Amino acid sequence: VLVEQLKDIVGPSGWTSDATDLEPHLTEWRDIWRGNTLLMVSPDSTEMVADVVRACAQSGTSIVPQGGNTGLCGGAIPDRTGKQVLLSLSRMNRVRAASAEDFSLVAEAGCTLASIQQAAADIDRFFPLSLAAEGSCQIGGNLSTNAGGINVLRYGTARAQALGLEVVLADGTVWDGLRTLRKDTAGYDLKQMFIGAEGTLGIITAASLRLYPAIRNPETVLVAVESPDAAVALLAILRAELSDQLQAFELMSARAVRYVLNHIPSTSFPLDQESPWFVLLETARQTTGDDFAALFMSLYESALISDAVVAKNRSEANDLWRLRHSISEAQKKEGASLKHDISVPVAEVGNFIRVAETAVTREVPGTRVVAFGHVGDGNIHFNLSQPEDWSAAEFAEQGQRLASLVYDVVDSLGGSISAEHGIGQAKREQLLRYRGETETGLMKAVKAALDPDNIMNPGKVI
Amino acid sequence: VLVEQLKDIVGPSGWTSDATDLEPHLTEWRDIWRGNTLLMVSPDSTEMVADVVRACAQSGTSIVPQGGNTGLCGGAIPDRTGKQVLLSLSRMNRVRAASAEDFSLVAEAGCTLASIQQAAADIDRFFPLSLAAEGSCQIGGNLSTNAGGINVLRYGTARAQALGLEVVLADGTVWDGLRTLRKDTAGYDLKQMFIGAEGTLGIITAASLRLYPAIRNPETVLVAVESPDAAVALLAILRAELSDQLQAFELMSARAVRYVLNHIPSTSFPLDQESPWFVLLETARQTTGDDFAALFMSLYESALISDAVVAKNRSEANDLWRLRHSISEAQKKEGASLKHDISVPVAEVGNFIRVAETAVTREVPGTRVVAFGHVGDGNIHFNLSQPEDWSAAEFAEQGQRLASLVYDVVDSLGGSISAEHGIGQAKREQLLRYRGETETGLMKAVKAALDPDNIMNPGKVI
Repeated sequence: VLVEQLKDIVGPSGWTSDATDLEPHLTEWRDIWRGNTLLMVSPDSTEMVADVVRACAQSGTSIVPQGGNTGLCGGAIPDRTGKQVLLSLSRMNRVRAASAEDFSLVAEAGCTLASIQQAAADIDRFFPLSLAAEGSCQIGGNLSTNAGGINVLRYGTARAQALGLEVVLADGTVWDGLRTLRKDTAGYDLKQMFIGAEGTLGIITAASLRLYPAIRNPETVLVAVESPDAAVALLAILRAELSDQLQAFELMSARAVRYVLNHIPSTSFPLDQESPWFVLLETARQTTGDDFAALFMSLYESALISDAVVAKNRSEANDLWRLRHSISEAQKKEGASLKHDISVPVAEVGNFIRVAETAVTREVPGTRVVAFGHVGDGNIHFNLSQPEDWSAAEFAEQGQRLASLVYDVVDSLGGSISAEHGIGQAKREQLLRYRGETETGLMKAVKAALDPDNIMNPGKVI
Repeated sequence: VLVEQLKDIVGPSGWTSDATDLEPHLTEWRDIWRGNTLLMVSPDSTEMVADVVRACAQSGTSIVPQGGNTGLCGGAIPDRTGKQVLLSLSRMNRVRAASAEDFSLVAEAGCTLASIQQAAADIDRFFPLSLAAEGSCQIGGNLSTNAGGINVLRYGTARAQALGLEVVLADGTVWDGLRTLRKDTAGYDLKQMFIGAEGTLGIITAASLRLYPAIRNPETVLVAVESPDAAVALLAILRAELSDQLQAFELMSARAVRYVLNHIPSTSFPLDQESPWFVLLETARQTTGDDFAALFMSLYESALISDAVVAKNRSEANDLWRLRHSISEAQKKEGASLKHDISVPVAEVGNFIRVAETAVTREVPGTRVVAFGHVGDGNIHFNLSQPEDWSAAEFAEQGQRLASLVYDVVDSLGGSISAEHGIGQAKREQLLRYRGETETGLMKAVKAALDPDNIMNPGKVI
């Protein structure tokens, strides 16, 4: 009965139960999580989403919302029962409004991140959220996971970009919170609850977003440093010198660079590879001048950096960014990889890498640490490649033990076991372990208040 | 029994029931809200706050937390029954940690805003929250009301400065969320619920805060413009030219300026007063140069501004800021004043002022609109001075009617009835009216989940 009701609500082009059509929606690209579904519906309006949720609520059927399905933790994948409804937001892909003077834009949840960047550029504005999956990930998913990416240092995460939300609640009620206000102290700031909740409290159907002035004079610089601690010290100096004009600040280990050069076609590296660590940074200065070259020269003379190269044009800059974005892909060619997307206080990044590397290589000698990422945000992708003489399966079996070692170090430094990827199905137990009863108890209280029948993406987060 | 229990918990120097000591805590400086209390306690540690809350929870006694008591909406004033416990955070005034390299600081709730600014400056960092009451308001109150001020344009409100919180929950449990992470997607972002909740969900006892590079080259500019619309157009141009280096952008009507010059000693004005509107703006450029003068010259030539003066030194700049900060005080001398602290989308500021002024002067001819404020945030203090030939009491009687007119205009433009001051006791009915059942229903659900016995600052917000 529910299936027929849902088909009626979304119309003939709004659902599928065809196995081939469903396949890409029932697993993630890493193929770790896999599920089944009663029916996949793709409503194309907020009212339709509300009707779907109401029908599901009446029959006690749970709903898994899905955007671009680019997640890594199984957050948008239904369970294996085949009893959950999969709700794709892909057809809700309109930019409803855009205002250059108000520096704001209103977009539906199914807009890809790239399309929102473009809509901002079309009115000479800049939408700063940027990450590797931007061509296919959707803004609803970006907000539901509080996505990060390379420009968080200057602009903050997805949360900081949200001025307002439209949300379909667990009983099918629509909450229209699509204001574009910079300041609003009229009661609780409800949108904050839904951001980062991975669809467990309601379904984000649209968002009003903050825009910024168009970027001028982007300049990309690659520097060689002795250690992560040197990178953190460099960051503090550059923030003082450049302030907000420092947009991105990414750490790469020499091993990460080497894997890219070995495995990814047509990549090259403009610096001597002797240095153990490199930083790829991007600035956007309002005024250009010789002071920039002088700044890096003085850093070289103080021995904080041992080498540096400024991209001569956007093509060279793009090559450098391609190198950075290819690390995960290159690492795949080195066998099994265990990923830990963690954050610590910025000042503790060097400490974390040192202690965690010692811990994992003591536990499994030969483990190759590939550390890289958003050091400006204290967010390191601490990935582990298998020992060269192990099988992938053998190494995968060590996953839980090595993760515990890494997360224990993170926890001892006041960090987080998830900085970008979220909790999904993957880290629920660890969340309980590391965040404790008080914090997870509060989360459960919020969940019970907003979704008393537990039909919104159950089994995710908490 | 409870009173004795509380006295035991906080010790002899931690409570008072003396009428003279209590007086400044039982009313606000405008003397609109006034209450009584069973006992005022001033715990000096988080554990002591927790013990107080636990004792109150056991006896079903409600608690009103109070910081610097600089609010305007009665949010920190107990009711008149004399049955509520007043909990002052003033003795919790330690800066627990400060790190230049991590760009962060951990402070207890009772630290004054000025003391936090100073603690940041002591390590060559900048804490951007700045408002008129900064010498006496406390960070716990700033966070509980999501305070704004003059630097929101560049840095965001109090919410954007919070990296983590320590909160005593309604049952006396302490939630330690004092992380200093830039990115954390491990479950719901619980701190967001307590920020802006005016103490109705728990008591903020400490916060980890975001710091920024020290400000360089601050420059203050006063310009004359034809209209609020011209100010908004100027803002868009300056944001494009200066980006984040534009720190503050404040609109003042000619009437507001005139009242200051008439009533506040030793104030002067460096521009011709013919213009109907003025903008006071502040920049902090990383590099200084002639382009700045050229920019304002080109704005003058394009007729977007009709006059401009750049402060020659900090003393001249301070004089200009003193002018801006004296508007409320000056307005008092013109008789009764009705205040409306509203926000609209930035692009609608001109429209709002036009329509609202027409509405109120049609309703009460002779009403003198004094409009000024944070136009860069869409936040206008739309204050109304009484007609010159009315009595203050006569005008005060029109308060509700005029507020309804103003708020109806705000609402029609997608704005908020409270941009800075919060809801407190003052605007509860209007919150229900303008935010509707779905939104206030969500707020009530959150309140019931976190404070089921309704003992945390009851009667405030919702």
